[in-house]
Amino acid sequence: MELISTILNWFGNITFLQIIDFVGTFAFAISGIRLASAKQFDWFGAYVVGAATAIGGGTLRDVMLDVPVFWMHDGFYLSCTGLALVWVILFRRYLVHMHNTFFIFDAIGLALFTIVGIQKTIDCGLPIWVAVVMGTMTGAAGGVIRDVLINEEPLIFRKEIYAMACVVGGIVFGLCDWIGCPAELTFPACGIAVFLTRVLAVKNHICLPTLKAEED
Amino acid sequence: MELISTILNWFGNITFLQIIDFVGTFAFAISGIRLASAKQFDWFGAYVVGAATAIGGGTLRDVMLDVPVFWMHDGFYLSCTGLALVWVILFRRYLVHMHNTFFIFDAIGLALFTIVGIQKTIDCGLPIWVAVVMGTMTGAAGGVIRDVLINEEPLIFRKEIYAMACVVGGIVFGLCDWIGCPAELTFPACGIAVFLTRVLAVKNHICLPTLKAEED
Amino acid sequence: MELISTILNWFGNITFLQIIDFVGTFAFAISGIRLASAKQFDWFGAYVVGAATAIGGGTLRDVMLDVPVFWMHDGFYLSCTGLALVWVILFRRYLVHMHNTFFIFDAIGLALFTIVGIQKTIDCGLPIWVAVVMGTMTGAAGGVIRDVLINEEPLIFRKEIYAMACVVGGIVFGLCDWIGCPAELTFPACGIAVFLTRVLAVKNHICLPTLKAEED
Repeated sequence: MELISTILNWFGNITFLQIIDFVGTFAFAISGIRLASAKQFDWFGAYVVGAATAIGGGTLRDVMLDVPVFWMHDGFYLSCTGLALVWVILFRRYLVHMHNTFFIFDAIGLALFTIVGIQKTIDCGLPIWVAVVMGTMTGAAGGVIRDVLINEEPLIFRKEIYAMACVVGGIVFGLCDWIGCPAELTFPACGIAVFLTRVLAVKNHICLPTLKAEED
Repeated sequence: MELISTILNWFGNITFLQIIDFVGTFAFAISGIRLASAKQFDWFGAYVVGAATAIGGGTLRDVMLDVPVFWMHDGFYLSCTGLALVWVILFRRYLVHMHNTFFIFDAIGLALFTIVGIQKTIDCGLPIWVAVVMGTMTGAAGGVIRDVLINEEPLIFRKEIYAMACVVGGIVFGLCDWIGCPAELTFPACGIAVFLTRVLAVKNHICLPTLKAEED
Repeated sequence: MELISTILNWFGNITFLQIIDFVGTFAFAISGIRLASAKQFDWFGAYVVGAATAIGGGTLRDVMLDVPVFWMHDGFYLSCTGLALVWVILFRRYLVHMHNTFFIFDAIGLALFTIVGIQKTIDCGLPIWVAVVMGTMTGAAGGVIRDVLINEEPLIFRKEIYAMACVVGGIVFGLCDWIGCPAELTFPACGIAVFLTRVLAVKNHICLPTLKAEED
């Protein structure tokens, strides 16, 4: 009984934010590891690509803001990537049927990472437009680094609304902030804006216009 | 009349340096956006590639020098990239006829960015040879990041004198500094050296030797 | 006689560590320059790829640890890369016969760079698991940057034990540290672990498992 109460107690200390953080990091890492597996990378390569997808955007943000790099001060992120690798190795065959689950998880991660990036930039005393840029970078740059590492054209530059969802969320954040909303309202409003923009755009096949080549 | 005098006044406050900065940033961004359009990137992807070309070199420099990243403290650079995107969307068909103009604009930007990179490095108390490296990086690394993002071999590693023009300008800067020239002489001398090296090399098809493959 | 004694004296001041540092930097630069030459890059491109291979991992480490970038404070590293370029230009035809020598040199460099990366991270007050990550990055990230620049899938993600040798060395370092070994024992133990893991894995064709694609 003691053990069960200890475990329950431990779970009780996990905040809602930590669960979202786990879900997002896990989904981002899975997306990197799956693309690495399509390229026949070995376990190490898959782990690195997964980690780059999950923590690359935040690392770039922290280096550019000149603050301590977040994952060096919390083993959670690299452990989570390791768990994602084990998951892909064990449940590889079932992953294709979990497409929708991972799509939703990824959108949740995108929303959280955008909020974290925006708030961290504001905490550095930078203006809101820089915060929107850094929030978008936190959410979307990991996917770009992933595609550079697997030697493909970055997916988010050609297809689907992905980074633009972060920009929409960032604008919502800025508006909430401008009209004086408290963080308890601003954060969820921004997160929901990112999540809905992403999900609705994909469900309705909404894309940004493509730049046509000059000889057309 | 009041309005006209206000506008003239406003223009009067724009320095020669700001005009050059605009011309260079605009030309760099255009080069990124055009290559992104050849890859059928969407507007967001094109904007990111344009921004990476225009501000990537300076960002890398500031991160490595551990000074605040320049574009976060002046909205000019990202606005200028936005303007370049609108320009390409609107005047796409005419761009091919403006090849020479953009070539000259790009060379002007290369010269200015090299000078800025060198001076900023010297201001950090680093030796002149580091300044030449950082000046070259400021001018040329944006183009490398651009080519990595569009998944092509970096153009400046294979063709034309581009980064070497920055190196030549850097050496001129170092010599001027060594013989005690004031900044009013050193800066233009460096800039003209970069500009002329770049333009003359392209006009006369001067290239660096290629490393031959080992099996030849 | 005076001259000879001066030269001997000068050589006497070169420490064992400096020789290893030279051997490693030289071998890393050579590996970048050779791959650049296979892509018909010009001398400048080859130099940049060589430098990125030799100093890229350490640069990434220093930027992420927020300490001064090592090569800016010692002209040795960029000079050494220049020497490697001259070497490849002059002795290109013989390089293929020196395969084993460069393989050993490269493994020596890998070992040294791992130790330097681990110790520098510990000196920043970060935990040992971060130090192992940063040691691996110091040793192996240069090769990843090299492959990104020449537009190839990173070799170390698909073939051979390379970065995993750094991880093994890092674990040995951590264990030595944990049981209270002095640096005089910990450093060589870590270096030998990296070197032997790398050499034995290649000689015995030991690879990490590959992630199979999902449709299999």
